[in-house]
Amino acid sequence: MSMPTCIYQIVGYKNRGKTNLICRLIDYWHAKGESVATIKHDAHDFEFDRKGTDTWLHRHSGASWTAITSGNGTAIVHSRPEALADLLQLAPSEAIILVEGFKQECYPKLVLIRCEQDLELLQQLKGITAVALWPEMWEKAELHTMLESQQLAVFELDDTDGIAAHTKDVFQAAIFNRATSKL
Amino acid sequence: MSMPTCIYQIVGYKNRGKTNLICRLIDYWHAKGESVATIKHDAHDFEFDRKGTDTWLHRHSGASWTAITSGNGTAIVHSRPEALADLLQLAPSEAIILVEGFKQECYPKLVLIRCEQDLELLQQLKGITAVALWPEMWEKAELHTMLESQQLAVFELDDTDGIAAHTKDVFQAAIFNRATSKL
Repeated sequence: MSMPTCIYQIVGYKNRGKTNLICRLIDYWHAKGESVATIKHDAHDFEFDRKGTDTWLHRHSGASWTAITSGNGTAIVHSRPEALADLLQLAPSEAIILVEGFKQECYPKLVLIRCEQDLELLQQLKGITAVALWPEMWEKAELHTMLESQQLAVFELDDTDGIAAHTKDVFQAAIFNRATSKL
Repeated sequence: MSMPTCIYQIVGYKNRGKTNLICRLIDYWHAKGESVATIKHDAHDFEFDRKGTDTWLHRHSGASWTAITSGNGTAIVHSRPEALADLLQLAPSEAIILVEGFKQECYPKLVLIRCEQDLELLQQLKGITAVALWPEMWEKAELHTMLESQQLAVFELDDTDGIAAHTKDVFQAAIFNRATSKL
């Protein structure tokens, strides 16, 4: 993305009215149909986007994109949905990325199964490597047979260690595949 | 930034325990010293990072970077400070960017002046194009003379329209400079 051209800073010591002036300017430009974004440096720990905080005020004055950073972290909020692929580009590349939802995406995944109806997901989704069964489904012997015939790893809902070990296998395979694809 | 390699999805219908399982996996990997990031798709409007919400739970389980997106917006929180230059790269390039703080940066800026002590900022900072005076400072005729001799625009604190018109001039100069630098 190219660098913005229209950048203006409001500065001053604490309690000089910076946030109040920024909000008035957001409101002014927003009313003229301009897209406004804000970036705030906070010398202290921030509580992000709770009612009445500075970033909440920025957003409710009409900023479509707002960021706050301080010594202990950074937060960015904007008013567009983002695709998983774009979020993955922004995520730290060295981290383990756990994705909640986005079930139509093709990454390796575990499906949570609580009742018979949930089994339809096994036909609909791509990339399933494992299922976690709620207790009422764990009891069904024929379900285990069916899942194992599909070469899925099967876990009890609470088996964190087992599921984590499975994700480790998936990650090692991905690292191996990436390494060999570069050969 | 390169694409992450270790990606795993947890999917299932509503109330199947996705967030609970994600938090247990974050906790597991975090305890092993791994960096964990999370991305959540929310079908509903989100309230971001308030105590007890899913993203708050992700972060407090040990995720160092977490994103949530829904039909009405996106939020990203992580535990590192960011430089203004990096935030500007992420900001929408077509928007007006209002920056609160970061007073040591060199972008065009207005300084809020509430008392004599604040005047030291006029010597210390770069890029000052305007000042806004609190009422007790507005009364000082010699201050106006001094500021005007420095070719600074001077506004009353509450003069939103005047300050906005000034920022418009600054933006037009920046657009002109960018356009002519490409010639």
